[in-house]
Amino acid sequence: MEVVYLIMKPVLLMITELVSPSASLSDEALNILTVNNLWMMLCIALVFVMHLGFACLESGFTQSKNTVNILFKNTLTPAIGLVSYTIIGFNLMYPEFANGPGWFDFSGFFLKDTLGLDYNIGYTYWTDFLFQGMFAATAATIVSGAVAERIKISAYFIFTIVFVGFVYPTIGSWQWGEGALHAMGFYDFAGSTLVHSVGGWGALAGVIMLGPRLGKFINGKVVEKPGSSVPLATIGVFLLWFGWFGFNGGSVLSAEPGTTSLVLVNTSLAAAAGALGGFVMGYIVFKRLDLGMVLNGILAGLVGITAGADLMLPGSSLLIGFIAGLLVVLSAVTLDKLKLDDAVGAISVHLTCGVFGTLAVGMFGAKAGWDQLLNQIIGIGICGAAAFGGAIAIFFLLKKTIGMRVSAEHEEQGLDSHEHGIRGYTITYE
Amino acid sequence: MEVVYLIMKPVLLMITELVSPSASLSDEALNILTVNNLWMMLCIALVFVMHLGFACLESGFTQSKNTVNILFKNTLTPAIGLVSYTIIGFNLMYPEFANGPGWFDFSGFFLKDTLGLDYNIGYTYWTDFLFQGMFAATAATIVSGAVAERIKISAYFIFTIVFVGFVYPTIGSWQWGEGALHAMGFYDFAGSTLVHSVGGWGALAGVIMLGPRLGKFINGKVVEKPGSSVPLATIGVFLLWFGWFGFNGGSVLSAEPGTTSLVLVNTSLAAAAGALGGFVMGYIVFKRLDLGMVLNGILAGLVGITAGADLMLPGSSLLIGFIAGLLVVLSAVTLDKLKLDDAVGAISVHLTCGVFGTLAVGMFGAKAGWDQLLNQIIGIGICGAAAFGGAIAIFFLLKKTIGMRVSAEHEEQGLDSHEHGIRGYTITYE
Amino acid sequence: MEVVYLIMKPVLLMITELVSPSASLSDEALNILTVNNLWMMLCIALVFVMHLGFACLESGFTQSKNTVNILFKNTLTPAIGLVSYTIIGFNLMYPEFANGPGWFDFSGFFLKDTLGLDYNIGYTYWTDFLFQGMFAATAATIVSGAVAERIKISAYFIFTIVFVGFVYPTIGSWQWGEGALHAMGFYDFAGSTLVHSVGGWGALAGVIMLGPRLGKFINGKVVEKPGSSVPLATIGVFLLWFGWFGFNGGSVLSAEPGTTSLVLVNTSLAAAAGALGGFVMGYIVFKRLDLGMVLNGILAGLVGITAGADLMLPGSSLLIGFIAGLLVVLSAVTLDKLKLDDAVGAISVHLTCGVFGTLAVGMFGAKAGWDQLLNQIIGIGICGAAAFGGAIAIFFLLKKTIGMRVSAEHEEQGLDSHEHGIRGYTITYE
Repeated sequence: MEVVYLIMKPVLLMITELVSPSASLSDEALNILTVNNLWMMLCIALVFVMHLGFACLESGFTQSKNTVNILFKNTLTPAIGLVSYTIIGFNLMYPEFANGPGWFDFSGFFLKDTLGLDYNIGYTYWTDFLFQGMFAATAATIVSGAVAERIKISAYFIFTIVFVGFVYPTIGSWQWGEGALHAMGFYDFAGSTLVHSVGGWGALAGVIMLGPRLGKFINGKVVEKPGSSVPLATIGVFLLWFGWFGFNGGSVLSAEPGTTSLVLVNTSLAAAAGALGGFVMGYIVFKRLDLGMVLNGILAGLVGITAGADLMLPGSSLLIGFIAGLLVVLSAVTLDKLKLDDAVGAISVHLTCGVFGTLAVGMFGAKAGWDQLLNQIIGIGICGAAAFGGAIAIFFLLKKTIGMRVSAEHEEQGLDSHEHGIRGYTITYE
Repeated sequence: MEVVYLIMKPVLLMITELVSPSASLSDEALNILTVNNLWMMLCIALVFVMHLGFACLESGFTQSKNTVNILFKNTLTPAIGLVSYTIIGFNLMYPEFANGPGWFDFSGFFLKDTLGLDYNIGYTYWTDFLFQGMFAATAATIVSGAVAERIKISAYFIFTIVFVGFVYPTIGSWQWGEGALHAMGFYDFAGSTLVHSVGGWGALAGVIMLGPRLGKFINGKVVEKPGSSVPLATIGVFLLWFGWFGFNGGSVLSAEPGTTSLVLVNTSLAAAAGALGGFVMGYIVFKRLDLGMVLNGILAGLVGITAGADLMLPGSSLLIGFIAGLLVVLSAVTLDKLKLDDAVGAISVHLTCGVFGTLAVGMFGAKAGWDQLLNQIIGIGICGAAAFGGAIAIFFLLKKTIGMRVSAEHEEQGLDSHEHGIRGYTITYE
Repeated sequence: MEVVYLIMKPVLLMITELVSPSASLSDEALNILTVNNLWMMLCIALVFVMHLGFACLESGFTQSKNTVNILFKNTLTPAIGLVSYTIIGFNLMYPEFANGPGWFDFSGFFLKDTLGLDYNIGYTYWTDFLFQGMFAATAATIVSGAVAERIKISAYFIFTIVFVGFVYPTIGSWQWGEGALHAMGFYDFAGSTLVHSVGGWGALAGVIMLGPRLGKFINGKVVEKPGSSVPLATIGVFLLWFGWFGFNGGSVLSAEPGTTSLVLVNTSLAAAAGALGGFVMGYIVFKRLDLGMVLNGILAGLVGITAGADLMLPGSSLLIGFIAGLLVVLSAVTLDKLKLDDAVGAISVHLTCGVFGTLAVGMFGAKAGWDQLLNQIIGIGICGAAAFGGAIAIFFLLKKTIGMRVSAEHEEQGLDSHEHGIRGYTITYE
């Protein structure tokens, strides 16, 4: 054990001693940094909650024979995502901060920049990393829902590591890493494209490569696979709305009161209007009070407002959210017609509404205009091609090597009994 | 689409450009605004969580055949509430900020006041709106639980729109809009009367107008309708306690450390003592360890402390919470005797303890005294008459037009299969 | 009633009037206090959520016939814990602030110190109390899980009152109350030893004194008792991770940006690595994708990093979390071999990984070294002896007086039907 700390101690000691910022900052500057950093840390906690939201949503909307499998994937996704983003992703996405390979650089960065205002006045290096890391892991989670109930867990995890470690941050670097898309004038405030549609393209690639669940499409008819627990799915959607306060609110990258509060208003109104859009279109299409469409409508509104949450008036947010709520239903119906089987509606929520939300920046709000709309279309195209192409490539390699899909017997009996050895629910009264 | 942004762009552009507060505020003032606003934004997120709390509580305490229906109502309630409060309620409740009809005024207000300290130093206009909007929607949610399992969903939604859009903000304006009750000396810190008893009166009106669920009272005996999921109800109560940190803490309207932290201590101690009160009285009355009464005791304590959370010592909070916990059980038993069927105990929690908590301001703490107690009684009476009268009127009109209640067949088979086409839980292992 | 306020009013009025800090602090100092206090208040809310996390985890991992009983215990635990910590525990743990018996001293302290910087610049007296009170109640909750499904509820509650009111704060005072351990050089940042292993020793004492559940060990074989709801347990673990942001983040006792954000990074990376450790060792030992071990691995990582979350580099946190994740599986297997029946794995998570995490302070990070390691071992020994001895003594007295364990009939039929009169789940479709 002495060996361990002999190796690590010198670096660590230096860092810890230099964590205290009292020396380098004025009281005023430290105060501003403290407030902004506090907001960002809370946004991290909120974005973290989104992972629980996805876990609830996906396990609630899928069959009880696969509950443990879904939860297993969704629990390990943020864990694997954070670790791979630590080791590879962060440095890849924000190359300007990197000066060497691997995660030992953290110390270097921190010592050099973090607490001085030359890092930035919004937050420390650690906060930046953790916010981005929590964000990154959501892109993989989006895929998880679409491919649920038949994907091999090993294939899913390898996909997650490569997608979060390479594809997502590469695309992200083009915009948030001050790359070419940013220079061109593309605008994506909190990631309708960079997070949601990237995840959505990954989901679409997965669904195409995997094929539908057994018995989903019979004689051209869609067979419903009833979700195990509607309350669980509802909890998931509320937690995602809750987490989106941090996802969008934190994307201001400071606690600046005007913008942050405007962003929260726009986010909530789009979610509310999305619920109404999903309600209305769900009623028109299915002739029933379709809770699933209301829930997906909320998510649609949230995804839709994400690209321009800092640019809109509340009136525009209501409109964007409502349209997204309508679209998510139409998209789900269309995917069913195309026999693309998305177990939880992830493609409709994240891809369809991610694209719409990105276009909305050119149609509504402070940046509206034909030039901007063109930039948005180009950005959507480039990111989409990269994300979809990358995901197809990864899934193709997986399919040719370890295989993507569990056996038919295994799928029919449920993944829980085969791989996990326990059931999701054991409710008995002897 | 060009039309859309041609219309909206000029207004929007102006706003966005003026969102940046750097010009008008001193660094010191901006810093204070930023901190206070940050606290208020987090309180918004916490109050939002209360809607999830209500959804869990109500679906957990009601029968599994109506789970989807409850969730449908509780998911759309904050959505409808936010939208109607956006369009009508906010301007009605705070008339001093209004200078024209409808929600396009937001921009005007914001431009004029928000980021200058002449709006206020606690938060921006947007924050104010969203905090109040989240608050407003809770009043409708309270009604939702009481009338569950037999109300027509169309009737419920129309009620919600009118109640959140008109009744609640009208009553609120008398006190928080600096109206007549406020001038008279009535005190209600965070809404034991203005939110909880207003919701509770609406619930009582609903229960009277609807009548009890089929088979609830047979030959003078109360028939228990077992709730579908006690864990779900427990999650709901914990989330409501969690959300109450924002409900009461945000009602300080700033992050002032002395008052906010005192309020949180009082809120938590009242909840803790309420649990004990519900436990004790539940044991006395029912001779069992009644978890339902412990959970409602927590809510009773929270509602009870809400009117005077900034005025009490911790000792008084413990006492108020404990008494509220006792009262909620006695109230539930009394309602049963009166054959008033409240599906989740909402009237006992929000009306009984809302009234008690408002009276407690005259009995304990910094404002205690006969004069104050008289003011409290008058305020309770006026708000109660308006809320109960308003709710009765709305329900009466609904009853005479579209009808309030589902058919007996429909009620017996459960609302989920009829209106929603799915079940709350599908737990099977093939 | 006049009597009540005549007695209480003079004290109360004074306090409330003096709550306003404007007189005594400079703007600058007030601003710092406000930000730090805001962070601490949010950490309180997060630590509160941990109680919901424990409730979900424990009821999810135990049998459905005992669900209500678990929830009853876990709901009343924070209530009883807060009240007993109010009356006894806080003054006992922080004797330097006490100047008389009981909770009326609160006012005295507050008036004298709280808002002046001579209390401290991190938070008010109220915030300090509530943060510590929420913390204290977690130590009892840890015990609750281990002894579930067979302990008498009366015995459990008496244990909780004495453990939270006396044992926990006495041990805590040796370190956080600036006592002998602190003077010696023992280091425990947020309580791997003072909270988690103290709770874990209490759990071990309980399990030894109670004996295993009926039918748990048959002919030397371990019989699995399937948990009622894996999604519920998963929600619990995510909420505990979420709450740990406040548990560790708040232990900085200010919002100082460098340390708080480093602590959050370390906390999250240890949790993520713990998940991987539990995954790997679960697969090695059980040859399956064991979700329970992944979930306990997350908690193991969190407990493991708690003692040194402010001292580590992210690299060390990953290592500590991963090792803790391996250890929690080995510990669970070992306890099974020793026929010690811990219903939810609390001893392995909180005791085993609490001890490991405390040792890790001497092995990794800024304080690593043989001297520190020795201090850590001594501290672990002293706290362990006191916690285990105290818990054994309390349980012994309970066993000799009211009895610790329910009857065999009662245990077999489930505690819910006997003591609580309702079932945890009633999912039927007539």
